[in-house]
Amino acid sequence: MVKKDTRNLLIEKGLEIFLTKGFNNTGIQEVLKEVGVPKGSFYHFFKSKDDFGLQVIEAYSERSKEHMESIFSDASVPPIERIRNFFDSALEKMRDSGFRGGCLIGNFSQEMGDLCPVFEKKLESKIRTMVSHIADCLDEAKKAGTMKNTQSSQELAEFLVDGWQGALLRMKVAKSERPLLVFLKTVFTSVLV
Amino acid sequence: MVKKDTRNLLIEKGLEIFLTKGFNNTGIQEVLKEVGVPKGSFYHFFKSKDDFGLQVIEAYSERSKEHMESIFSDASVPPIERIRNFFDSALEKMRDSGFRGGCLIGNFSQEMGDLCPVFEKKLESKIRTMVSHIADCLDEAKKAGTMKNTQSSQELAEFLVDGWQGALLRMKVAKSERPLLVFLKTVFTSVLV
Repeated sequence: MVKKDTRNLLIEKGLEIFLTKGFNNTGIQEVLKEVGVPKGSFYHFFKSKDDFGLQVIEAYSERSKEHMESIFSDASVPPIERIRNFFDSALEKMRDSGFRGGCLIGNFSQEMGDLCPVFEKKLESKIRTMVSHIADCLDEAKKAGTMKNTQSSQELAEFLVDGWQGALLRMKVAKSERPLLVFLKTVFTSVLV
Repeated sequence: MVKKDTRNLLIEKGLEIFLTKGFNNTGIQEVLKEVGVPKGSFYHFFKSKDDFGLQVIEAYSERSKEHMESIFSDASVPPIERIRNFFDSALEKMRDSGFRGGCLIGNFSQEMGDLCPVFEKKLESKIRTMVSHIADCLDEAKKAGTMKNTQSSQELAEFLVDGWQGALLRMKVAKSERPLLVFLKTVFTSVLV
């Protein structure tokens, strides 16, 4: 196994376990055991567990970033529809996972927000990226006259991203898509109109 | 110290630490040390750490329940204003805590939703109580003709409770009241109108 593969495997397994069990509740030993690599190998790639966590966030965001860009840059789709497509694709992902796990950025924000300033800063910047894509679409929709809501696009985009995180949070105890569907229905019938 | 006091002290300290550090990240030993009681005393009151966590949720909800009832049963205040008062009082609490901690029910939902069915069920029932108070106000507002939004009160109430949890989550990384203010502004200018 080449070194690059080992790093990727550790990141993948870390992401999978962090999504279900959280960061503090996961031991490095558990990740190593699942991947089948020795401790020394881990410390070759990561300075510490925190460093590992931050790199898992980075890998997760990199993937989401490509996905978001493909949806949000599709100028053939009206801007409000692009936002809808983004949330619909996230809903599909949650269906596939049996309404478990949720969003790593949201989970870590809840878990690590008060505990680690480095996590706090990284998570905030990842949230800002999501917000900014949505705000751009809202600006476009306003210019095109397809949305009457005059509240600032930045505020509305923050409201949507936060609301989605809240719906994901309840999804985890309801183990159903209902919180996500209620979110989508309310947003597209009451807010982005 | 009488027994009842010891139990209350353990619950209080548990609540305080769980709010900042989470459930899995907190050792019983830490709570015992802070309160200054021996391990045997803990197991006199609680069967296990899970049982302790569930009783902390119960105590937290009992307090919130009284607070909610005092706000939501005040018929001298118009129903939409009662909802506003509820969120405003929660905002005040967050200001007092320096935008840390958040809501125990939301935090535990994120952390324990996928890990422990007993927590899952208890948390869902606590969320349902919040939702039901808000839905009742929305029904009243519709009857009084002070709200035009025709979406079901139950759905709107779920949307509000989830959105608030999402705003609290971002508050923890933003360390500011902005997510909460954006939530309130959007809800009271776009949703409950």
